[in-house]
Amino acid sequence: MDFKRKLSAAQGKNNSLLCVGLDPDVAKLPTQVAGTPQPLFSFNKAIIDATASLVCAYKPNSAFYEARGAAGIEELKQTCAYIQEHYPDIPIILDFKRGDIGNTNNHYAAFAFDYLGVDAVTVQPYQGRAAVQSFLDHKDKGIIVLCRTSNEGAGEFQDLDTDGRKLYLQVADKVAKNWNANGNCLLVVGATAPAEMAAIRQIVGDDMIFLVPGIGAQGGDIEATLKAGGPNLIINSARAIIYAGNPRQAATEARDQINKYRSQP
Amino acid sequence: MDFKRKLSAAQGKNNSLLCVGLDPDVAKLPTQVAGTPQPLFSFNKAIIDATASLVCAYKPNSAFYEARGAAGIEELKQTCAYIQEHYPDIPIILDFKRGDIGNTNNHYAAFAFDYLGVDAVTVQPYQGRAAVQSFLDHKDKGIIVLCRTSNEGAGEFQDLDTDGRKLYLQVADKVAKNWNANGNCLLVVGATAPAEMAAIRQIVGDDMIFLVPGIGAQGGDIEATLKAGGPNLIINSARAIIYAGNPRQAATEARDQINKYRSQP
Repeated sequence: MDFKRKLSAAQGKNNSLLCVGLDPDVAKLPTQVAGTPQPLFSFNKAIIDATASLVCAYKPNSAFYEARGAAGIEELKQTCAYIQEHYPDIPIILDFKRGDIGNTNNHYAAFAFDYLGVDAVTVQPYQGRAAVQSFLDHKDKGIIVLCRTSNEGAGEFQDLDTDGRKLYLQVADKVAKNWNANGNCLLVVGATAPAEMAAIRQIVGDDMIFLVPGIGAQGGDIEATLKAGGPNLIINSARAIIYAGNPRQAATEARDQINKYRSQP
Repeated sequence: MDFKRKLSAAQGKNNSLLCVGLDPDVAKLPTQVAGTPQPLFSFNKAIIDATASLVCAYKPNSAFYEARGAAGIEELKQTCAYIQEHYPDIPIILDFKRGDIGNTNNHYAAFAFDYLGVDAVTVQPYQGRAAVQSFLDHKDKGIIVLCRTSNEGAGEFQDLDTDGRKLYLQVADKVAKNWNANGNCLLVVGATAPAEMAAIRQIVGDDMIFLVPGIGAQGGDIEATLKAGGPNLIINSARAIIYAGNPRQAATEARDQINKYRSQP
């Protein structure tokens, strides 16, 4: 099944727009987990089992695995395989924000889609559509392009005025109009910038799905996000859920809070 | 020793601006290598031994290793360790073009500088300086920011006019003026765009080093590159050397051709 249908089915089944970011930092894990041979996978397994009925997707960020080298990549693969085996209805978004020339991107795509078998990836816009084509050609996969990110200082280039329109709006416009021939493009739009999100929504229309980082630890507001972005969202939370005393409860509350504002006109 | 001093020493010792891109694609390796347990490392080892007296740096691109998952990352580590042990004077540039929020970039930096122990990395500009600060804080490492890339279609966003100046020139200007407090920034400027390279050089001054991909297989011209960029360059060639019948000869010719134009006023 392609990513967008799988996502839609999971959103319906679990009544959820919540995506849990599987970003385990060994330095922050409980001692009894951190000392095991597979700390990242053991930690993720517990989070996944606790939250699989509450989410529309999981989003491991590659950086947290790479920091542990080959062993970490092995744990990333185990994490993906665990979801694929036990919760095959939940799509996996690999957040790796890759961007290179086309020939090289083929190899990044092989890592994501052949080795890990994930359903979607995040990519960088800076080198243009031709470079990203290696990803876009995977028609059944979600290709999620950075548009307006959630970090402090994101506006340094993204907010520059380009031919009468800010750069992030140029990215949004080109992705929606020129990159999306296979209908498999999404955009990353941070929850920390609701005004920018509303402007992007106006340009790309209601159907384009936004992956929204920045709620929870980064301070984005759920109500403002739903108001600005409409219902076609994947709302990611990582630290606020995975390090919670009770991750299932934290995920339930996040899902329900999102649904509260989702149902309002 | 910090990256820039190590680079300068290697450039002097080997009389070379040539960087060899260690980008082994298993599908293109000789059958007797491709079938071994560590095909990427075996292949690289032969290339490194053949070219170590001819180069100023090696540049493995992470994508080619990631495509083989954890085993590939292990081979990337072996490759770096081999250079560090046998040719400790040659700096290693990890070409991984990462970019994420600051907290996440700490983990990418850990992969590059702690796990692999490389001397420099390539990074994405799109999320701004604040996001890249995790890298910039490594004062002794080279942080090489994508500015004008060598791929077809690179201009889609990079050539947009932003407040009277093309985006890649804004990146060049901000990196030179605001990102470079530790003096450890470099720029990626493709050989396929010599006019753009000249414009960047004019903005950032003569001291900023450019990492120049795009000669060889991508078609960039060495003479035009030297004319546009001046002598402060690291000129990368990958496919044209690593897949040559005689890599040592190919590297010698590339080095000498670069030196021919370097010595002209």
